[in-house]
Amino acid sequence: MTDQKATNVHWHQGEVTREDRNQLLGQKGATLWFTGLSGSGKSTVAVALEKALFQRGKLTYRLDGDNVRLGINKNLGFSAVDRAENIRRIGEIAKLFVDSGVIALSSFISPYQADRDRVRELHAESDYAFIEIFVDCSLAAAEARDPKGLYKKARAGEIKNFTGIDDPYEAPQAAEIHLHTDKMSLEEEVELIINYLEGNGFIAAL
Amino acid sequence: MTDQKATNVHWHQGEVTREDRNQLLGQKGATLWFTGLSGSGKSTVAVALEKALFQRGKLTYRLDGDNVRLGINKNLGFSAVDRAENIRRIGEIAKLFVDSGVIALSSFISPYQADRDRVRELHAESDYAFIEIFVDCSLAAAEARDPKGLYKKARAGEIKNFTGIDDPYEAPQAAEIHLHTDKMSLEEEVELIINYLEGNGFIAAL
Repeated sequence: MTDQKATNVHWHQGEVTREDRNQLLGQKGATLWFTGLSGSGKSTVAVALEKALFQRGKLTYRLDGDNVRLGINKNLGFSAVDRAENIRRIGEIAKLFVDSGVIALSSFISPYQADRDRVRELHAESDYAFIEIFVDCSLAAAEARDPKGLYKKARAGEIKNFTGIDDPYEAPQAAEIHLHTDKMSLEEEVELIINYLEGNGFIAAL
Repeated sequence: MTDQKATNVHWHQGEVTREDRNQLLGQKGATLWFTGLSGSGKSTVAVALEKALFQRGKLTYRLDGDNVRLGINKNLGFSAVDRAENIRRIGEIAKLFVDSGVIALSSFISPYQADRDRVRELHAESDYAFIEIFVDCSLAAAEARDPKGLYKKARAGEIKNFTGIDDPYEAPQAAEIHLHTDKMSLEEEVELIINYLEGNGFIAAL
């Protein structure tokens, strides 16, 4: 695969800017914020999108429980305060990636509208793109999948404050992209997101 | 400027890996950790290095007080505990950038050896490169420069616990790169770092 980049890097005095990095990468940095129930398919679609974008020579980075909860946020628990701080920090890290030119794929349940809106505002303050992607799946379907066995534990009372069982999931009211994962194929989901990114100038159309 | 990349992207099953991203970018992600007194020239050399690397088509990202202390770490003060947490979070963020393929340039006084060593260990755990760069400048020279007027305020007692005045600066004992900023030109400093990056395979030699 050949992908020629940075064919027309404009050089100027002063520091390297966000625009310079975007030009170098041939893309525009943005945060894609996947939100949905546990088991809704957030990571599955993020991984598939990452592959599709890589095949086009685009640089993405996924933020998820593995690299965030076990790293920078390992000193946070699951109290209301800590959950809000968890999302705030993820939002701030995503902003840094956007500034660096990377397309950040954030994949967390992030059940509260207020937390997501705060991250949206953080991005808006710096004129950074925040693209909310509602990974919409019925509780029944997510619970039937139960890939990590978490719903079973929550129903048995072994996990408390589990989103969808004894803690609310506040569905996005105005997400930029709405994926119905129990009706769409993975390919259709990825295509919808790619079309959005092309249509809004984050990546060039093929 | 033309810089052709990703001419031989190897594709495989599964998730996009760190190696894939390095290959896409034509570089190997690493953390360059600049440490030194206030006024020693950390930001000056980081900015100059960033320009030199950009001109070679390399993607870097600078972490500094402007985008970290005012962003993700805005809920941290300057107590001993908060200073340690500040450096820990910066180290974790730098790790994420390394994983993404970016060359992260971290530019903070980071006066304590224990804090820097902890960040080094965090990187070693994941086999990520941590390159400590001692921006070495005598206190007299840094104070004579005093670009932000901070030494003056510290001497007047308006700022407490100021590194070099009433708080220690623990010089690195085994930094990968040692810059004597009161003896070397900025060009020489940048060249030394570039040579290190080339010599250790983070970027290709021209």
